[in-house]
Amino acid sequence: MTATQDVIDRIDREKDDYLGELKQYLRIPSISTDPQYKPQVRGAAEYLRDNMRQAGLSAELVDSPTGGNPLVYGEWTGAPGKPTVLFYGHYDVQPVDPVDEWRHDPFEPTLEGDDIICRGATDDKGQSFTHVKAVAAVLAERGALPVNVKLIVEGEEECGGEGIEAFVRADAGDRLACDCVVISDTSMYAPGEPAMLYGLKGLTYVELRVQGPNRDLHSGTFGGSVQNPLNALGHILSSLQDPETGRVLIAGFYDRVRPLEDWERKAWAELPFDEDEYRRELGVPELFGERGYNTRERTWGRPTCDVNGMWGGYQGEGAKTVLPAKAGAKVSMRLVPDQDPKEIADLFRQHVERVTPPGVAVEVREVHGAVPTLIETEGPAMEAAVAAMRDEWGKAPVMIREGGSIPIIATFADVLSKPVLMMGFGLPDDRLHSPNEKFNLQCFYGGIRTVARFLDGLAGQAG
Amino acid sequence: MTATQDVIDRIDREKDDYLGELKQYLRIPSISTDPQYKPQVRGAAEYLRDNMRQAGLSAELVDSPTGGNPLVYGEWTGAPGKPTVLFYGHYDVQPVDPVDEWRHDPFEPTLEGDDIICRGATDDKGQSFTHVKAVAAVLAERGALPVNVKLIVEGEEECGGEGIEAFVRADAGDRLACDCVVISDTSMYAPGEPAMLYGLKGLTYVELRVQGPNRDLHSGTFGGSVQNPLNALGHILSSLQDPETGRVLIAGFYDRVRPLEDWERKAWAELPFDEDEYRRELGVPELFGERGYNTRERTWGRPTCDVNGMWGGYQGEGAKTVLPAKAGAKVSMRLVPDQDPKEIADLFRQHVERVTPPGVAVEVREVHGAVPTLIETEGPAMEAAVAAMRDEWGKAPVMIREGGSIPIIATFADVLSKPVLMMGFGLPDDRLHSPNEKFNLQCFYGGIRTVARFLDGLAGQAG
Repeated sequence: MTATQDVIDRIDREKDDYLGELKQYLRIPSISTDPQYKPQVRGAAEYLRDNMRQAGLSAELVDSPTGGNPLVYGEWTGAPGKPTVLFYGHYDVQPVDPVDEWRHDPFEPTLEGDDIICRGATDDKGQSFTHVKAVAAVLAERGALPVNVKLIVEGEEECGGEGIEAFVRADAGDRLACDCVVISDTSMYAPGEPAMLYGLKGLTYVELRVQGPNRDLHSGTFGGSVQNPLNALGHILSSLQDPETGRVLIAGFYDRVRPLEDWERKAWAELPFDEDEYRRELGVPELFGERGYNTRERTWGRPTCDVNGMWGGYQGEGAKTVLPAKAGAKVSMRLVPDQDPKEIADLFRQHVERVTPPGVAVEVREVHGAVPTLIETEGPAMEAAVAAMRDEWGKAPVMIREGGSIPIIATFADVLSKPVLMMGFGLPDDRLHSPNEKFNLQCFYGGIRTVARFLDGLAGQAG
Repeated sequence: MTATQDVIDRIDREKDDYLGELKQYLRIPSISTDPQYKPQVRGAAEYLRDNMRQAGLSAELVDSPTGGNPLVYGEWTGAPGKPTVLFYGHYDVQPVDPVDEWRHDPFEPTLEGDDIICRGATDDKGQSFTHVKAVAAVLAERGALPVNVKLIVEGEEECGGEGIEAFVRADAGDRLACDCVVISDTSMYAPGEPAMLYGLKGLTYVELRVQGPNRDLHSGTFGGSVQNPLNALGHILSSLQDPETGRVLIAGFYDRVRPLEDWERKAWAELPFDEDEYRRELGVPELFGERGYNTRERTWGRPTCDVNGMWGGYQGEGAKTVLPAKAGAKVSMRLVPDQDPKEIADLFRQHVERVTPPGVAVEVREVHGAVPTLIETEGPAMEAAVAAMRDEWGKAPVMIREGGSIPIIATFADVLSKPVLMMGFGLPDDRLHSPNEKFNLQCFYGGIRTVARFLDGLAGQAG
């Protein structure tokens, strides 16, 4: 019996109401990538604002500083001297194509056993709604919260809008002041297996353009007399990574890499993970990556370098004997702390200058960058989160990292200098961005209870 | 004063008539790549047949064994015991696009100074018409030829038709029996500088397909765990050629290469050729090719390996972090005697198997092959040709090779086992395949006179 049992009991009594509200929220097709849905996107924001108000929060829509979709801002700050939690989520959803593959109307929430099928069910309406309902349950039960809370739920996450970034940077010192950030937009490790995501990779994405002769040439007449841009690009791409050891060969690339800690390697090794099944599922003859690391370590904790696209010359059927004037490629490097995207772009450029063969000119353009994130796995907020998850699910969360990048998390970490707790309630098979996206009801209710426990746990800490 | 002076005088008297006939022939738009022009293609063949008959040859249209355009076959075999010359040419022409760039109607032969502007003027109506008019002049002057002649003029050269190949292979032992083949479908080295082309490169053209995972993957989630097909393709392409020395690195690639002979290197070095001007015209920072050879030697006499196309992953604007399932490339190797296209394809395949990095499957498909040709530069026919050119132009022809491939020449050399004399009368700036194609009248008349001299010269040899 924990200190939160009063609220837990209320949540269990009222969970059907919460599900009913979630269904209403899910029915609003808030697809942010399609301008046609602009009114519905705003409608979802208004629904959430009103829901927050009914819970006893002060809430408002904040128009995007960049002219995009509004974000919903709610707060309850009646616990002076206590810590403040900033919850982040998003109310916009992905498009529904291919619509034929849905078993139901994508915007009619439908129960299949314990799963609720709907676009946005897990990503991120359902998951971030756990924050709102946990706060609502505590306020309904006790008339007050044990800590201060602020919620920002944005409407441009799926369309790459920059409103949230501008908002966070502008309001960080004042409105967004807090002790920790909580985000529920990721997954548990498996059903019943809670996970805390504490690391994400950064990114340096560049484009290479190789220019040879000033026009396409006949490879018979001119072959052998000038450097071929495609041959040259092959040399450059080949120089990036050792094909046997998987090591990136850019000088200085690993200089700032924080080595995996022993506890991480040990903890990950204990996670259920079948490399052979993983290999079979991907259909490759063998797995391949940096020598000295296993697949988990490679994907979660080691930097990588992948060619994402390349092109040049004749790509059609049959034979065309062209010696093309130009060739190009896109290359991305996934970074880990403490690599710096700008510095890596510079090292990449220097490397390319060094290895470019004679007779061609190469241009390197920086397309995109993201800072890697590693959240401190100790400290009061993290301890409260771990305890809440353990109390709810009966076991401590596994501490995991991921290979992807979530730029807003780096922004929070950078601007607020507070821990960002990625407390995911989804499951690995939730089909986010795909047809028949779902959210498990036990994850939904368990998530609400976990957040309620977390609020109480954090209240025990100094503000 | 040569033995041919009687005929030379006649040619000079009648040259305006020859020009008039050439214009009539050029006016027929015999574009073989466009089925709409089928009647005109046949019309050109009929004109040529009739022109041969008027000259005193027996001539007929031979329908293509592969259902394509007819070829014109003419002969005069009234010199038993004397050598037989087989002339080859083509009466079909390239399309005229971009038509806006022509200064005149592409099929209205128009004189600009000594140049006659028309599609097909040099390639190959004008050049191959020199054979017909030389024979006509000798017959008109003497009532007989000093040697036997056979002419085949085909109508599918520009559209890659295989009729000629089938015809030559079927009729080689009988109708096409000869002592040498003469082709006029190439260029002089410069105005007033005759050239004899005695070498052409062969070709092995392959396509590479690299297969990695069974679907495109997210490079964040999966990057570092599987071999990336684009990275792998980079390694494979890079392994083909040393980027510093320009040497092809496929094991055994050079084993059958016939070294350049001292006389070739010396003769080519004496040809006017400005490497710096060549470099500037191509717009490259520096020329690049196999170390130890100059540009002429590289393009004419050394085998090469060029990537002609490659593709894979994301080629659009901006960033897409895909780890693609597959990648591909087209690679061609230009061969010199005595390299064998089949053997080189095998060596290429073995090389790729050896260098393919772990974790991907690679398929090599043979797309196309052509045998390299090197004509013996000694022997009676070659001597007669060289003498005819020297007598006509006042200097011996320069002996040159080219980097391209002309498959029919390899076929003649292979099937007939007789020397193939590439006696070109075009000029390097004739704009073949381009708007405002031209043929210089001095080349036309000089070509007719050269062929007449050659017939007399050859008659002095044993048949």
